[in-house]
Amino acid sequence: MIGRLNHLAIAVPDLDAATALYRDSFGASVSEPQNLPEHGVTVVFVELPNTKVELLAALGEISPIASFLERNPAGGMHHVCYEVEDIIVARDTLKTQGLRVLGDGEPKIGAHGNPVLFLHPKDGLGTLIELEEVASTE
Amino acid sequence: MIGRLNHLAIAVPDLDAATALYRDSFGASVSEPQNLPEHGVTVVFVELPNTKVELLAALGEISPIASFLERNPAGGMHHVCYEVEDIIVARDTLKTQGLRVLGDGEPKIGAHGNPVLFLHPKDGLGTLIELEEVASTE
Repeated sequence: MIGRLNHLAIAVPDLDAATALYRDSFGASVSEPQNLPEHGVTVVFVELPNTKVELLAALGEISPIASFLERNPAGGMHHVCYEVEDIIVARDTLKTQGLRVLGDGEPKIGAHGNPVLFLHPKDGLGTLIELEEVASTE
Repeated sequence: MIGRLNHLAIAVPDLDAATALYRDSFGASVSEPQNLPEHGVTVVFVELPNTKVELLAALGEISPIASFLERNPAGGMHHVCYEVEDIIVARDTLKTQGLRVLGDGEPKIGAHGNPVLFLHPKDGLGTLIELEEVASTE
């Protein structure tokens, strides 16, 4: 069911410093910051040869990463995103096996314009897992 | 400097249950468990099309992931590994920029037989970063 690791998301308190670390110290290719007000984050994409790292900073007063940053003031790995070919099939298969989907269980449109869902971290080895529907996962 | 995301490591309290989640629920290809007594872990490799997830369980009385699992009893993302072409060049470049290398600063042979180093999580956005020397990182 799961295909490629689409991205690893790292929540950070200071997006400029985080971008500088990956761009200047690690020598990676990074995007301009993009505000995603509907997701409550500003994101910088770090392009690696085989996948992406997303640096997330809180945007606005209610951000889904605010409580994470309160618990982890220096930042930390926030979630991992795996690609699936059909998000409804994936969701229904996982629900049959007892895994819980966050929110109302309906896919939302994620930062890349594709349908996404999040699984409950307690059902995912303490890890917040995002599933993203991508036409081809190979 | 950094190349591919070599693997994402998830520390887990129950390796059988973690393997079952990725193999049976997520439908991924998983390896047999491998004991790495010199690293204090037992590892299962989850093969994704573009990278690997490593499921780590503590092995022996002194494991480098024991304290992490005490803080995160359900498990959690433990570290991310980026490939570099020359680990000595990478280390010296990063040290010049003030990043701290864990331990004595000398590369060790990692789980894949390649030289590895870990950077201090406080210098890595709260994320434990492993660097692994791989001949070609493309």
